[in-house]
Amino acid sequence: MRRAVFHAELTEDLAGMARLAGQLMINASASLFQADLALADVVLARGEELPVRHREVQQRCGTLFARHAPVATDLRTLVAALRAGSDLRRMGHLAQHIARITRFAHPHPAVPGGARPVIARMSLLAGGLADQAAIALEKRDPGSIKRLARADDEVDALRGELFRIVFATNWSHGVQPAVHAALIGRYCERFADHAVAIAGRACYLATGRLPELLPLPR
Amino acid sequence: MRRAVFHAELTEDLAGMARLAGQLMINASASLFQADLALADVVLARGEELPVRHREVQQRCGTLFARHAPVATDLRTLVAALRAGSDLRRMGHLAQHIARITRFAHPHPAVPGGARPVIARMSLLAGGLADQAAIALEKRDPGSIKRLARADDEVDALRGELFRIVFATNWSHGVQPAVHAALIGRYCERFADHAVAIAGRACYLATGRLPELLPLPR
Repeated sequence: MRRAVFHAELTEDLAGMARLAGQLMINASASLFQADLALADVVLARGEELPVRHREVQQRCGTLFARHAPVATDLRTLVAALRAGSDLRRMGHLAQHIARITRFAHPHPAVPGGARPVIARMSLLAGGLADQAAIALEKRDPGSIKRLARADDEVDALRGELFRIVFATNWSHGVQPAVHAALIGRYCERFADHAVAIAGRACYLATGRLPELLPLPR
Repeated sequence: MRRAVFHAELTEDLAGMARLAGQLMINASASLFQADLALADVVLARGEELPVRHREVQQRCGTLFARHAPVATDLRTLVAALRAGSDLRRMGHLAQHIARITRFAHPHPAVPGGARPVIARMSLLAGGLADQAAIALEKRDPGSIKRLARADDEVDALRGELFRIVFATNWSHGVQPAVHAALIGRYCERFADHAVAIAGRACYLATGRLPELLPLPR
């Protein structure tokens, strides 16, 4: 019974962290497009909650390690939870990096021209993947991994599209917006990779097997 | 006795992976500056060894989880080893990303002008950090973390310098080299962060405590 409570609480914590990460990404992206400094600051401030909550997860897992002799299922849960916590902390940092670009470019919007719709779509997909990772954690649904992998593929394809746009001869917005667009694309891509990895860990929790479809983060 | 052998083998595997990651970074950087396609291909090919070796580490840890009831020290070793393995796989991917930029820009060197010495220094520091992470794993030396954190700080400072160079009004090399320089800077920075994180895990193995100086990867 204590074990079941522990596992349920751990899942709830991680799913909550995933939803927060998703909100941070959506807000970071909105701050970019509206050159909204106040919103960027909200992302920077609330992003600090993820490392704190990650440490709490670490400490709780550490206590269980030290006090009990965890059985195989517990161990699997603990290791997967620790790694999901790491992923979620990173996702918070990536959203914060985007908010910092909003600050850097202010009062101008950081991303101009044809790069805007591509980045808007990438960040929407990335934020949605975080929500889906939360659901995967709660439901431990091995089927979710395929849906997430498809959205992640679209993020990767959009990153290629972004390079074509900023490297095209008709890109007229100069060096700085191109560099920012390329970095934001990278941050969205990594954010999405971490979300897919979390769903893979949820699948592992459910089945004891890593899904073959799980793309290794690159 | 079996436990001691297992721990020693795990350490040897991870230290070997760290040395390979360091070589990949140094070679990726050399391929950039010499526009050396063959060397870039070596990095791309040999980088594939790290995910394979990481999976072997995972499988071996998984077997120990399943067959034995690991005691607290074993658990600490296993969790730290799994996370170090993840870091090392990522470091390989980051070196490969740099090699891909060499390929993309060929026959031109990807990085021109004032960005060259900065990136040369960053990649040298990053490669050196991987070697130091290997030594930290072998010696489980808590003192190593301070040295690594200092080198990592220099990498972060150089990344700021790189932005100043490519965003300066006298940057005359256009959009593509600026984007490549910014991305390579990011890859070097992340590579260095992972190396420091591995040394932190080695310190944790030695002392059971995470070093306070350990910078959280951003």
